[in-house]
Amino acid sequence: MSKILRVNMSDLTVKLEAVPDKYKFLGGRGLTSAIICDEVPPTCHPLGPNNKITFAPGILTGSGAPTAGRLSVGCKSPLTGGIKEANSGGVAADKLARIGIKAIIVEGQPKEKGKFQVLKVSKDGAELTPAAAEWVGKGLYETYPKMLKKFGEKTGIISIGVAGEMLMAMSGIAVNDPENRPSRYAGRGGVGAVMGSKGLKAIVIDDAGGSSIPVANKEAFDSGRKKMTDALKQHDVTKPGGGLNTYGTAVCINVINEAGALPTRNFREGRFEGAAKISGETLNETCKKRGGVGMTGHRCSPGCIIQCSNVYPKEDGTELVSCQEYESLWSFGANCGIDSLDVTGELIRLCNDYGVDTIEAGATIGVCMEAGLAKFGDGKKAIELIHEIGKGTPFGHILGGGTALTADIFGVVRCPTVKRQAMPAYEPRAIKGIGITYATSTMGADHTAGYTIAPEIFGVSGKVDQFIVEKADMSRSFQYVTAFLDASGHCLFVSFAILDIPSGLEGMAEECNGVLGTNWTVDDIGRIGGDIIKMERAFNEGAGFTKVDDRIPEFMKYEKLPPHNVVFDVSDKELDKVHNP
Amino acid sequence: MSKILRVNMSDLTVKLEAVPDKYKFLGGRGLTSAIICDEVPPTCHPLGPNNKITFAPGILTGSGAPTAGRLSVGCKSPLTGGIKEANSGGVAADKLARIGIKAIIVEGQPKEKGKFQVLKVSKDGAELTPAAAEWVGKGLYETYPKMLKKFGEKTGIISIGVAGEMLMAMSGIAVNDPENRPSRYAGRGGVGAVMGSKGLKAIVIDDAGGSSIPVANKEAFDSGRKKMTDALKQHDVTKPGGGLNTYGTAVCINVINEAGALPTRNFREGRFEGAAKISGETLNETCKKRGGVGMTGHRCSPGCIIQCSNVYPKEDGTELVSCQEYESLWSFGANCGIDSLDVTGELIRLCNDYGVDTIEAGATIGVCMEAGLAKFGDGKKAIELIHEIGKGTPFGHILGGGTALTADIFGVVRCPTVKRQAMPAYEPRAIKGIGITYATSTMGADHTAGYTIAPEIFGVSGKVDQFIVEKADMSRSFQYVTAFLDASGHCLFVSFAILDIPSGLEGMAEECNGVLGTNWTVDDIGRIGGDIIKMERAFNEGAGFTKVDDRIPEFMKYEKLPPHNVVFDVSDKELDKVHNP
Repeated sequence: MSKILRVNMSDLTVKLEAVPDKYKFLGGRGLTSAIICDEVPPTCHPLGPNNKITFAPGILTGSGAPTAGRLSVGCKSPLTGGIKEANSGGVAADKLARIGIKAIIVEGQPKEKGKFQVLKVSKDGAELTPAAAEWVGKGLYETYPKMLKKFGEKTGIISIGVAGEMLMAMSGIAVNDPENRPSRYAGRGGVGAVMGSKGLKAIVIDDAGGSSIPVANKEAFDSGRKKMTDALKQHDVTKPGGGLNTYGTAVCINVINEAGALPTRNFREGRFEGAAKISGETLNETCKKRGGVGMTGHRCSPGCIIQCSNVYPKEDGTELVSCQEYESLWSFGANCGIDSLDVTGELIRLCNDYGVDTIEAGATIGVCMEAGLAKFGDGKKAIELIHEIGKGTPFGHILGGGTALTADIFGVVRCPTVKRQAMPAYEPRAIKGIGITYATSTMGADHTAGYTIAPEIFGVSGKVDQFIVEKADMSRSFQYVTAFLDASGHCLFVSFAILDIPSGLEGMAEECNGVLGTNWTVDDIGRIGGDIIKMERAFNEGAGFTKVDDRIPEFMKYEKLPPHNVVFDVSDKELDKVHNP
Repeated sequence: MSKILRVNMSDLTVKLEAVPDKYKFLGGRGLTSAIICDEVPPTCHPLGPNNKITFAPGILTGSGAPTAGRLSVGCKSPLTGGIKEANSGGVAADKLARIGIKAIIVEGQPKEKGKFQVLKVSKDGAELTPAAAEWVGKGLYETYPKMLKKFGEKTGIISIGVAGEMLMAMSGIAVNDPENRPSRYAGRGGVGAVMGSKGLKAIVIDDAGGSSIPVANKEAFDSGRKKMTDALKQHDVTKPGGGLNTYGTAVCINVINEAGALPTRNFREGRFEGAAKISGETLNETCKKRGGVGMTGHRCSPGCIIQCSNVYPKEDGTELVSCQEYESLWSFGANCGIDSLDVTGELIRLCNDYGVDTIEAGATIGVCMEAGLAKFGDGKKAIELIHEIGKGTPFGHILGGGTALTADIFGVVRCPTVKRQAMPAYEPRAIKGIGITYATSTMGADHTAGYTIAPEIFGVSGKVDQFIVEKADMSRSFQYVTAFLDASGHCLFVSFAILDIPSGLEGMAEECNGVLGTNWTVDDIGRIGGDIIKMERAFNEGAGFTKVDDRIPEFMKYEKLPPHNVVFDVSDKELDKVHNP
């Protein structure tokens, strides 16, 4: 019987609770959002005693379903002021699931600031112990090995870095990858600051004695797993030796650049002259050429069969960083006018080390460059700026506050955020559907909330012209299915396969039916995902959000984006139609 | 015939326009808010090309009505994100009125940043000229004499300081007082940043050849003026030798401290052990004792008969600063734990010099002290922090962004703001009515929006217990009358007299009837003020404000304030009743 672990940081107590009936069929984002909606007042201060932070593996995590090892983290976001779910790969979710933890809820707040605890969870229970001095105030590449040495090399570690300790709104939460790098992140929305505000440095998970999660209907599960696996192995994007496996997510750089939608120099242009140098193709070649530890086709999480991560080597073949994701090397690359994988790699490594979201960090550096505080293309200065964050200087605190705060501080009007969260690597002026998702997602600007890029650029589930503005229905449908995916524990990248291959989608429903004993059909997927979104919207409404928050930044409505010279011309009516069809 | 002067900063053109019929009976806040509502999209970026900034003397300004020389400044606020009207004393409004300018509307935005223009206005028209290099990037105590030398000692100057040039959200707009100090401020809401974003350094007004504004009904006007004058000269608070005239607004320090409502050390306590040292009584004594230029009973604006300003001397009798207002010496005094008038005086002088709002600045230093960046009571450090703003260091940019931004940057939960504007010098937990005004004002936390302190503490218009929570009706009625007052051009301080002396209130209606040829009665005052508030609320709603924005900070609902050990316990229902009776 799985349990909910409740951790009170005011009195440093822990208790295991039975899973309420209403949470029985929930997992991942579905569960974290339900807990936040049920237990957190929407108007509370995100860093105050009345916010909570919750962690949940997906429904399928720990079941042996392929590519289903995501960990959802939920709270009220200090970045957006709304509800937040950020999910991560890495080894932790699987371990939590295997010892029967359906969710961890961390609540309360210590009176004394700057003291940190570590929560240790195992099959036998949980306990809080003071964090050793050497684990605090240091980079995660230094502290992870120390924590692993203390708790065991097979431990899953969910930890904040110094940015989270300093309550910065761009701080994420790290999870170790299969080789124990602090490299997988629940990055977005400042979840690290909320964990920091609770005085919780890390959660360490020992899954010794654990086992696969119970399956209510083995036949359904096995059938579903086979269908999903087959779909993933068939589809050109997800199959072994396919696009993601070979080039990583960076496969998008050349494609999106070609589409005129790669935001360049703080969203001034849609095409970057240096794109080829930071492309997936170049990344792959460099890994091969330099040899050593360099590789694409790396697995970020147990049980993943897509394996789109990479390990990027220095010139001498030793490791610089894992992983150069599309979003990260866009944010520091094209968006900052930087065309060197060695520079983007170093910037990503620093973000992993200090514990910040690479999308938010790159967008913030872009705004700094816009403000004239650094020159576009100046990688050395960009590295210095990220160090400011780690050092916690006043300037570092500005940057650590994220893109919108930095823009406010320096009076920058060209601020590419929605609900104060930085936009990812797709220009909404040039690809209208993703703009609709950015505007209307419950999460702030977020490509993972409804990845309409699939049809708009890749032709997945049928090609749709990128400039068509009537895409409220499309965005809604993507947002709903994605919310289900985020609840399932599957990685978003299964969506390529399940959108194109009907049996893949059936497989996902069957996998869930197998674990939960439900009778969901593919038609239930959108309904269940829609219920999650509606619940999240209700929270946001309670926090004071209105349709004014479901908008793209004003400057994108009057400033034309080259090379297509387009503005964001989706009507407010179309935007409002997403959640009021 | 008065005109509206429209200034386009995109193409540097000016034109005089006839006053539309719908604006005929408007002035001051009534006019600036109407212009902003009519011409500014509520969702525009406050520092972008679609915001406008507008300046208007009150209905009675330039008429010879007593204490009626206020200048209203309106725009969308970069601090609150809502509509803003801030008004100021000084000589400018009177001069504008005397040359027939009913309002100035500044719109558009220069392409090139960091270049500033000066707008020169006289009876013969208006023109933009580039600001001399020596007027930019310098303190206003240095630049005002230079501008006055250039344009004439009798010129009215409306100018931003370096904070406005740097687009800081706590920047105000200065107006010279009768002795040409840059000491009177439209301080609140970041109006200086909006002026700075337009590339407008200053407006200089030469009223040579001007004359009193036309009066449509001389009999009514003379009768009204006499009634108002008599009321002001009779009432204990406003009469010559009365409370305000003798002690300045600082007369409130001992009274509010005694009431347990003087916010102390970032709103941790309601009583300050050092209050007596920064009181109006001590201020008065010090001025007398030190002699030299020291004086209370100073006039901040032509035609004022209350004369509540002061000139505070150094030990040697030379001038330190004018003026030590209650709000300013509270914000830097009790709120920062500082009990020295010499220190508060220096801090206020620096704010005047750099061009920032003293309330916002003091509250921001309080939040810094809360964050451990300075010790409560450390005046030397507080002075250094204000210098950071003037120098425009990264830390200075944080502070210049105001209290809420600073709290966000450093993760401070105890942030005393409403709609992101810092609270003034009255604790809402200890005086419930002013809390209702803070919460529900269109302007953010603002004592001047509905000064219920009058009945709650001073017994003006009848004494009402400070702890009673059912005061929605009272706050609404004060907010409505105040909006009318702010439209009339009268200083808020006439309210003591007109609330207690019925003929004073009649007098205000008659003065306006005299100037405008209307037939308003005292019953129209609330109606007309209410219409202004409703218009402003509609703008704020369009900008995305909801009832969630009409709330007191969460920490005041769970943290008890000594010495009365009270929380803010006004219900949300009562708050919502203010604007939905």
